Amino acid sequence: MTEVEAKKPQESLQDRLAQVIELLHRHKLVEDLTHRQEGQHHDRVENLVHRQNLVELQRKLEDLHPADIAHILEALPLDERLTVWQLVKSERDGDILLEVSDAVRETLIADMDDHEILAAAKDLDADELADLAPELPRDVVHELMESLDAQQRERVRSALSYEEDQVGALMDFEMVTIREDVSLEVVLRYLRRLKELPGHTDKLFVVDYDGVLKGVLPIKRLLVNDPDKQVGEVMADDPVSFHPDEDGYDAAQAFERYDLISAPVVDKNGKLIGRLTIDEMVDLIREESESEVLNMAGLREEEDIFASVWKSVRNRWAWLAINLVTAFLASRVIGLFEGSIEKLVALAALMPIVAGIGGNSGNQTITMIVRAMALDQVSTGNTARLVRKELGVSLINGILWGGVIGGVAYYLYDSWSLGVVMTAAMTLNLLLAALMGVLIPMTLARLGRDPAMGASVMITAMTDSGGFFIFLGLASIFLM
Amino acid sequence: MTEVEAKKPQESLQDRLAQVIELLHRHKLVEDLTHRQEGQHHDRVENLVHRQNLVELQRKLEDLHPADIAHILEALPLDERLTVWQLVKSERDGDILLEVSDAVRETLIADMDDHEILAAAKDLDADELADLAPELPRDVVHELMESLDAQQRERVRSALSYEEDQVGALMDFEMVTIREDVSLEVVLRYLRRLKELPGHTDKLFVVDYDGVLKGVLPIKRLLVNDPDKQVGEVMADDPVSFHPDEDGYDAAQAFERYDLISAPVVDKNGKLIGRLTIDEMVDLIREESESEVLNMAGLREEEDIFASVWKSVRNRWAWLAINLVTAFLASRVIGLFEGSIEKLVALAALMPIVAGIGGNSGNQTITMIVRAMALDQVSTGNTARLVRKELGVSLINGILWGGVIGGVAYYLYDSWSLGVVMTAAMTLNLLLAALMGVLIPMTLARLGRDPAMGASVMITAMTDSGGFFIFLGLASIFLM
Repeated sequence: MTEVEAKKPQESLQDRLAQVIELLHRHKLVEDLTHRQEGQHHDRVENLVHRQNLVELQRKLEDLHPADIAHILEALPLDERLTVWQLVKSERDGDILLEVSDAVRETLIADMDDHEILAAAKDLDADELADLAPELPRDVVHELMESLDAQQRERVRSALSYEEDQVGALMDFEMVTIREDVSLEVVLRYLRRLKELPGHTDKLFVVDYDGVLKGVLPIKRLLVNDPDKQVGEVMADDPVSFHPDEDGYDAAQAFERYDLISAPVVDKNGKLIGRLTIDEMVDLIREESESEVLNMAGLREEEDIFASVWKSVRNRWAWLAINLVTAFLASRVIGLFEGSIEKLVALAALMPIVAGIGGNSGNQTITMIVRAMALDQVSTGNTARLVRKELGVSLINGILWGGVIGGVAYYLYDSWSLGVVMTAAMTLNLLLAALMGVLIPMTLARLGRDPAMGASVMITAMTDSGGFFIFLGLASIFLM
Repeated sequence: MTEVEAKKPQESLQDRLAQVIELLHRHKLVEDLTHRQEGQHHDRVENLVHRQNLVELQRKLEDLHPADIAHILEALPLDERLTVWQLVKSERDGDILLEVSDAVRETLIADMDDHEILAAAKDLDADELADLAPELPRDVVHELMESLDAQQRERVRSALSYEEDQVGALMDFEMVTIREDVSLEVVLRYLRRLKELPGHTDKLFVVDYDGVLKGVLPIKRLLVNDPDKQVGEVMADDPVSFHPDEDGYDAAQAFERYDLISAPVVDKNGKLIGRLTIDEMVDLIREESESEVLNMAGLREEEDIFASVWKSVRNRWAWLAINLVTAFLASRVIGLFEGSIEKLVALAALMPIVAGIGGNSGNQTITMIVRAMALDQVSTGNTARLVRKELGVSLINGILWGGVIGGVAYYLYDSWSLGVVMTAAMTLNLLLAALMGVLIPMTLARLGRDPAMGASVMITAMTDSGGFFIFLGLASIFLM
């Protein structure tokens, strides 16, 4: 990516978004007018105003950092997004494509012809090309690869050989390497000859003649130590390093924990092959927490807020279908007790309370557990303890709130025994919710799935069916 | 914080956690044994084993980075957490306290006497002291402040005068400042005299004689440029800077967007007063997404997974109570239609399907919107469009899945009109869910509240009451 020194924006991002939207709407208004007058006398003035608006918008966009343009593209519906996209200078296309989310990137690439894509991609680094490649048309990728030198091509291939969230796919290749048997003075002179250092260079990598990592020289140490000292005396010889097949999210957590800016990636022979930087890690941390939220609600991550209705339907389809099945099962549970309900119709009015509170409480538990698991705080050693604690919380809530609602039921339907059944059912369903709230994410994890996956849908299914069964069952036994 | 060069851990964090837990359990087993034999002949061997275990555990802990110890403390129940805490060397207490979450920090500080707290805090910087101060006993804070020099005391006071998530509370004071009319050579010599540079120093701050920020000198430029050049020629003179009363989360987004490592904080006269660093921002990004997840489920953030049962009950109380009220309202809606249910008991079995699917679909919508709002992608300009899109998705899902479930209802109860009512009710409830899924978070935001706050509880309340009303209402009109 071309390095852009970020300047202090004059207005907030929200303001700038609002301005772009305003310009777009003004543009559209004029376009509509011109369109309506077509066939009639063609009005030159209108056309001029139209063009002026576009020029103003284009000037606005030129002042913005690629990341800000990406943000604006994310926040626009498809047609307006493409209008803005066409106004952006083509040499900036590559940087912007790297900043937008996958879903938006797809819509932008679909709007470009091969020639434009090639122009946008030609200034990118190997790791950036590898990020884009999976979404580009096959022959464009082929042509791009042809244009690279052997080393670059090898790097793109290597990056593409890893899964999207493995360290090997996240690393870049912009490393400054030095030898340990030279003086700091020599290093300083060497850096000056480079003219430019890669972004996020907080340390130099010390390698031997075979390219094996011997240590790192933090820039801080380079600056404060006597220039006559040798690199080997000053370097840190046991730095945090990563392997290309490690999980990127684990690496991100290490960056967060040890406050790293950059870190070397080595192969299994200890040879330096790339580096990770904090900016990629921050993106990963952000994406991971987002997909946790979305997964819990049974959404996949690829939906941008202005995705087409059809795309959204498909995104939400799977869990809605699962929910339909579970809701149907809950309905059949009620079906089992239709006789009881016919005799005592109050049961129909009270049963959703038992199910609803259970669902809410279960969602609280499962949210806590999923979060603790994401932070690696849950191990097999403490499962039993967690279950005990959650059961304790549920027992108190059940007796307490169950008691309240039991009292209300007694007051409304003037039946002492109905109140007791209500309290008992609520307590039992809350206990079920607590148990399932711990066990569902743990079981998913043990099966190698994401513990957040559809967690909310599943716990609600349990507490619905369970709640109806417990309440109507108790009622059938004790009230009929 | 004392700077610790992070070393590559030999084992994963999970492994280390498991080892500590194992050592703790062995320790406890021996303690239980010794305890049981008390009053009897006191067994010296047992006591020896006991001590050996603790020594082994202590050695294990000494090898760990403060951030790793913090992680282990988070993952342990209270009693074991305190056992580990007492084994940690007191000079590391301060660093570890800074790393743990608020909830865990509270439990650790409660276990320390004033003397221990003072010892732990004495090596901390002003901004770190300010982080801890609100949770320390009053007289300890007083004593700490007394021990500081005037400048440090002023800095702690200043940091404490801002809200927890304002830039002023997040900044540190470890800045290296230089003048613009000196040569890079002079700067290099000056840095060498400092012996050590603050962590995350990727740029030096250029100020005039009044301390007003004139620009920043990225270390990268210092290294690659001719040492004879003046700072003024090489510096970036319009850097991204922040004000102390800005929202920290906005600053974090700017760090993410512009790939910053550090940035100056200036007062309203342009005077340099502190700096922000990426490590604080990463923590903020993480915390923000966590509290979003928790808020949606109606949880406050202060609960650690091993919080006492009572503390957890209080944490979850408020939203459970609200849920109880909404569930009761839904129950009264059903109560209105008891007559209809008595006549056609199938309604009781079918109504939770309508409510449940609505809740699930509404949760999907609200999750999308809350997320888009957190990313600043939603502005007043596009609300109407979002509502239209969500209504479109719901309409398709309603007709489709509503049709399926209508078919099932027809098959089960052999009533053609019941099937139609079911399909219609599901479609209408999904439309309601879509509308509310967009409007609830937007309204909360307009009222100045967190849009995620209890979002899940509220949408479920709407779709439950709404679903019952729509379904039973339609049934009463068309089937009775």
